[in-house]
Amino acid sequence: MTNCANPESQPRPGRIITLTTDFGLRDSYVAAMKGVILSICHDANLVDLTHEIPSHDVFEGAVFLRDCAHLYPPGTVHLAVVDPGVGGTRGGICIKSRHYTFVGPDNGLLSLAANDDGVIEARSIENEDFLRNPASDTFHGRDIFAPVAAHALLGVPIERFGPEVTRFETLTPSEPECVSASMVQGEIVRIDRFGNLVTNIAREHLGQLGRSTVDADLSVEIEGRSINGIHTCYEDEPPGTLLALWGSSGALEVSINQGDAATTLGAQRHTVVRVSAGRQV
Amino acid sequence: MTNCANPESQPRPGRIITLTTDFGLRDSYVAAMKGVILSICHDANLVDLTHEIPSHDVFEGAVFLRDCAHLYPPGTVHLAVVDPGVGGTRGGICIKSRHYTFVGPDNGLLSLAANDDGVIEARSIENEDFLRNPASDTFHGRDIFAPVAAHALLGVPIERFGPEVTRFETLTPSEPECVSASMVQGEIVRIDRFGNLVTNIAREHLGQLGRSTVDADLSVEIEGRSINGIHTCYEDEPPGTLLALWGSSGALEVSINQGDAATTLGAQRHTVVRVSAGRQV
Amino acid sequence: MTNCANPESQPRPGRIITLTTDFGLRDSYVAAMKGVILSICHDANLVDLTHEIPSHDVFEGAVFLRDCAHLYPPGTVHLAVVDPGVGGTRGGICIKSRHYTFVGPDNGLLSLAANDDGVIEARSIENEDFLRNPASDTFHGRDIFAPVAAHALLGVPIERFGPEVTRFETLTPSEPECVSASMVQGEIVRIDRFGNLVTNIAREHLGQLGRSTVDADLSVEIEGRSINGIHTCYEDEPPGTLLALWGSSGALEVSINQGDAATTLGAQRHTVVRVSAGRQV
Repeated sequence: MTNCANPESQPRPGRIITLTTDFGLRDSYVAAMKGVILSICHDANLVDLTHEIPSHDVFEGAVFLRDCAHLYPPGTVHLAVVDPGVGGTRGGICIKSRHYTFVGPDNGLLSLAANDDGVIEARSIENEDFLRNPASDTFHGRDIFAPVAAHALLGVPIERFGPEVTRFETLTPSEPECVSASMVQGEIVRIDRFGNLVTNIAREHLGQLGRSTVDADLSVEIEGRSINGIHTCYEDEPPGTLLALWGSSGALEVSINQGDAATTLGAQRHTVVRVSAGRQV
Repeated sequence: MTNCANPESQPRPGRIITLTTDFGLRDSYVAAMKGVILSICHDANLVDLTHEIPSHDVFEGAVFLRDCAHLYPPGTVHLAVVDPGVGGTRGGICIKSRHYTFVGPDNGLLSLAANDDGVIEARSIENEDFLRNPASDTFHGRDIFAPVAAHALLGVPIERFGPEVTRFETLTPSEPECVSASMVQGEIVRIDRFGNLVTNIAREHLGQLGRSTVDADLSVEIEGRSINGIHTCYEDEPPGTLLALWGSSGALEVSINQGDAATTLGAQRHTVVRVSAGRQV
Repeated sequence: MTNCANPESQPRPGRIITLTTDFGLRDSYVAAMKGVILSICHDANLVDLTHEIPSHDVFEGAVFLRDCAHLYPPGTVHLAVVDPGVGGTRGGICIKSRHYTFVGPDNGLLSLAANDDGVIEARSIENEDFLRNPASDTFHGRDIFAPVAAHALLGVPIERFGPEVTRFETLTPSEPECVSASMVQGEIVRIDRFGNLVTNIAREHLGQLGRSTVDADLSVEIEGRSINGIHTCYEDEPPGTLLALWGSSGALEVSINQGDAATTLGAQRHTVVRVSAGRQV
């Protein structure tokens, strides 16, 4: 892809702030956070990633961020709030990684994306100079995380937000395992709106299989169904056919071309998926 | 909170326009309004507050706006359309308040937020120079309110939109009342996505209670359940416990830490809530 | 409507990019596309039109775009992805019309809006210099259409994206027909969130009716119900009354003032609607 070297087109890199929450848009919580941000940084380019993370589902939020945060330009501030423990003992955190600044609760939500980008430094958010006063104990998104993110966007160095922390809460996604010389077992980690079943199995996990790992010679087993071969495209099979393919995030997916694999198979998050060397007959 | 004095970061205060509607995003109504605004003011910073106000629910829209409009920077134009009477006898209105300009139907939708901010002047929208021509009778959002809001954003003085009005439709939210020397009775006014029940009872309403109003010594009654003490944070009780707390908007809320109080209690908007001095045994 | 001649207010016409998809916001697909766009064009003004087109419903997406794309300022890039055939034989297309640039799959999605605006030139998207590398076969929105749209926004001439095509997939919306000298028959083409039934019948289709086409003298028949007269406004009838009116897009609509006509009548897309000269008794 060609790079855009035209400076005219990139006058203010770093004015982008993304928002990821489980707040939905029916309540005024997101609107409140946006107001706080814009009051501090009038020309912030607010980008809604999603506000539809399932309520309190920190893991799903973390996976969401990991899947798309890295596509944003360097200097972007990623603000995320999925916060079942708001007001409790969990702290607030600001993480500087190689390209980004992440702001949110220290409950693992930011950990997958930040670690993937390469963490440089993390700070516990404690300096009240940068918080709304008084900060409520039930809405840190508005009173703590939004103002800190806005100040980070303005260029305030993160060391001003609070003391350095050497550890922050980190989630550990499940990993597929070799259950025999010819079989790798993983699970469904995400189901998308089209009913596509995204697994935790990537191509590199198949390297340990004893026999051929040519896509056409592999078979995939899920919910008692066997699928021969792994494709790269839904259209490789006629509409309505169950197929396995390497999805857009690099993970193995089970899909039905123009259909809904989740409903058809009755599969859910954590449903077991097995990949074997050799086709099933 | 530190103020941002860096002029570089706030080059064009006043280019922010917020949108609040009951249009949803499945239809092209919101997209149409945005196109009209951007055609008049190319660099408008469009901020979606919500498009999920329940259909025709002017009161809910008014409360939504009141809860978050005041967090936006001075100069923001708040455009709102929840308009069951479109094309009928209700007029269109543009209200200048201390910090903001509000544009929408004159049905009370703007009244709570505008009155809270302090109304300076209100104009009936009548000058066809600022409307789409011809204006339809079924979509004033696109043909009347969007263009007027965009012109307001450009700095057109509101007196140009039409004649001054001294009265506009104003909603009157329910107020809690003292039903005895030791009891205040209010009601649920809003239920959020997490099932938190927001009441119309604020701390100042408890001043008339005869006995102690220390939070720990109050009790809250709702749907036959008694809750002792008012907290400031969900995490003050273990997950699954019913609790009362002072919520992020300053109002008394009934919640279940990491649970859904509305579903658990079967409570709805207008459900009665009573606060008494003294703990229940 | 007055034009805004103030150059200060329109410093960079053409930085607007709209997004229309069937991706929803629960998954990270839209967030991924936005990241790709902003990485190429940092100051893009991203405008979400909708992400709630029903899954794989190319026709509904095309109608949506046709209904609102023309309201945007000249120079706007309209990016749309409803793409059941992703990775198959359908190509990707970039269409330059009189005022806009359209980018998306060549499956008819862009055709109604582009043809309405007047097509100047269409290019098949083939030049890999402007694509993400490698481009996945399941997510052209992120890997092909987003980067091409962003480069178009930067001013890259569309001839650089690939060879000219003289034909692209074009949808043909159903047309109403004269079934007798005094009757035009059409159908429901869209049902909005309020339950309003939008038909494919416009005022010009009634020109062939033998008798009077004064609105008050027409009658509308749907699902066995007769409605006398066509109004211009919901408020012409009391709340709860079934009425026919000329809607905001110029098409005949069947509505219930403050009610839901679709549910009440049990009408769906393709339900037949007839307009007759003369009132029914």
